[in-house]
Amino acid sequence: MNIVLLDPRQTESDLWSITSKRQLEHLQQHLEVQVGDTLKVGIREGKRYVTKVVETSEKAVLLKPIQEEAVPAKLPVTLIVALPRPKVLRRLIMDAVTMGVEKIILLHSYRVDKSYWQTPFLQQLNHYVDLGLEQAGDTLAPKIELYKRFKPFVEDILPGLIIADRPAFVAHPYAEQLMPYALQHPCTIVIGPEGGFIPYEVDLLIKNGCQAVSLGNRILRTETAISYVLGRLFSAS
Amino acid sequence: MNIVLLDPRQTESDLWSITSKRQLEHLQQHLEVQVGDTLKVGIREGKRYVTKVVETSEKAVLLKPIQEEAVPAKLPVTLIVALPRPKVLRRLIMDAVTMGVEKIILLHSYRVDKSYWQTPFLQQLNHYVDLGLEQAGDTLAPKIELYKRFKPFVEDILPGLIIADRPAFVAHPYAEQLMPYALQHPCTIVIGPEGGFIPYEVDLLIKNGCQAVSLGNRILRTETAISYVLGRLFSAS
Repeated sequence: MNIVLLDPRQTESDLWSITSKRQLEHLQQHLEVQVGDTLKVGIREGKRYVTKVVETSEKAVLLKPIQEEAVPAKLPVTLIVALPRPKVLRRLIMDAVTMGVEKIILLHSYRVDKSYWQTPFLQQLNHYVDLGLEQAGDTLAPKIELYKRFKPFVEDILPGLIIADRPAFVAHPYAEQLMPYALQHPCTIVIGPEGGFIPYEVDLLIKNGCQAVSLGNRILRTETAISYVLGRLFSAS
Repeated sequence: MNIVLLDPRQTESDLWSITSKRQLEHLQQHLEVQVGDTLKVGIREGKRYVTKVVETSEKAVLLKPIQEEAVPAKLPVTLIVALPRPKVLRRLIMDAVTMGVEKIILLHSYRVDKSYWQTPFLQQLNHYVDLGLEQAGDTLAPKIELYKRFKPFVEDILPGLIIADRPAFVAHPYAEQLMPYALQHPCTIVIGPEGGFIPYEVDLLIKNGCQAVSLGNRILRTETAISYVLGRLFSAS
């Protein structure tokens, strides 16, 4: 937690109040926050501030804003990823948000176990988005969309995302072209499930405008592939 | 598991044998391997092969080698990382091995909880190395070294790693210079603990030859930072 994320209504009075159990526990038990300490705070969908702690009790930490700070810029990327198993999903959402992905699309694919769509974590994505924003020091939640059918998504939705100067790349171990790097423009990346997309799916993605690109000879786990690709694609910034 | 890693002694007869419980369970329950299937196999510290399954029983899967394959190249990088908490350590080792890090150094630092050095996982690093190699399709384990004292390591060992054309970069949020990308030569990277290195540590690293470089305004988790940095540094390959 590198900032504390607050709802706008918590910042309406002169003194702002942190009252969430999770945040209080972290501040009081882990960081041992004291009156007089400074604390970085972000207002959901708003600005970021340095604040000073003016009161701390079991039920609340009260803050006074001191100075506005810049919110870090997003990466101009849409991440389309085959729905991973629930344990991985939580970290994946958190990390994609931390790295600044603008939009996340969770997609079905042949090798995605259908039971993954029943996980309660899908109802709690906002919680993992919060954790990612608090890690990054960001205040703006990315858009997250879910598509439970592969073909209609790829044929009807995907082509609308691939416009001029905004190419889409699907990571595919057997592609001849390497994944580009240091892009100066937005893009979409498509990451398959454990075990990869099946050939039919790769073909359909290519037919609908994706470029198949390789990350080299090593097969990375989904989570690892995402941060590896984002580091590579946006290395110019 | 994208290859099955075998000890050389398992490949001494005409037919090679998989007998490890972990590998058998994965092959039989998860992949449902049948006689006649092909299977990728790597010999520890040796070559990689496509094999054919000729027999499968509760106690063993027997294989016949068909064709030699290339083992993927390593990334020419030494990764020095402050010892993370045990749960993160496992994934970190696995992922660093999967991405092809040549050498991993686990280091103490002021913000590393001393109890982390007592974790049983430190006795089981070889297991996580195996999982990383099997994910990547690699056969060559990286060197792993542990240093429980920060200052002697940085003053006595680190300078020997920083030679001509092999710079060392410490990721530091407040550095002005950005982390480089698309390197054409080997390097060493130094990644701090959760909460970062303390200023004394950063100063000592710089004094002993490291360049402090920033990854931008977002503070990434240790694991995420490692794959993000590796993707960026070696994007030219």
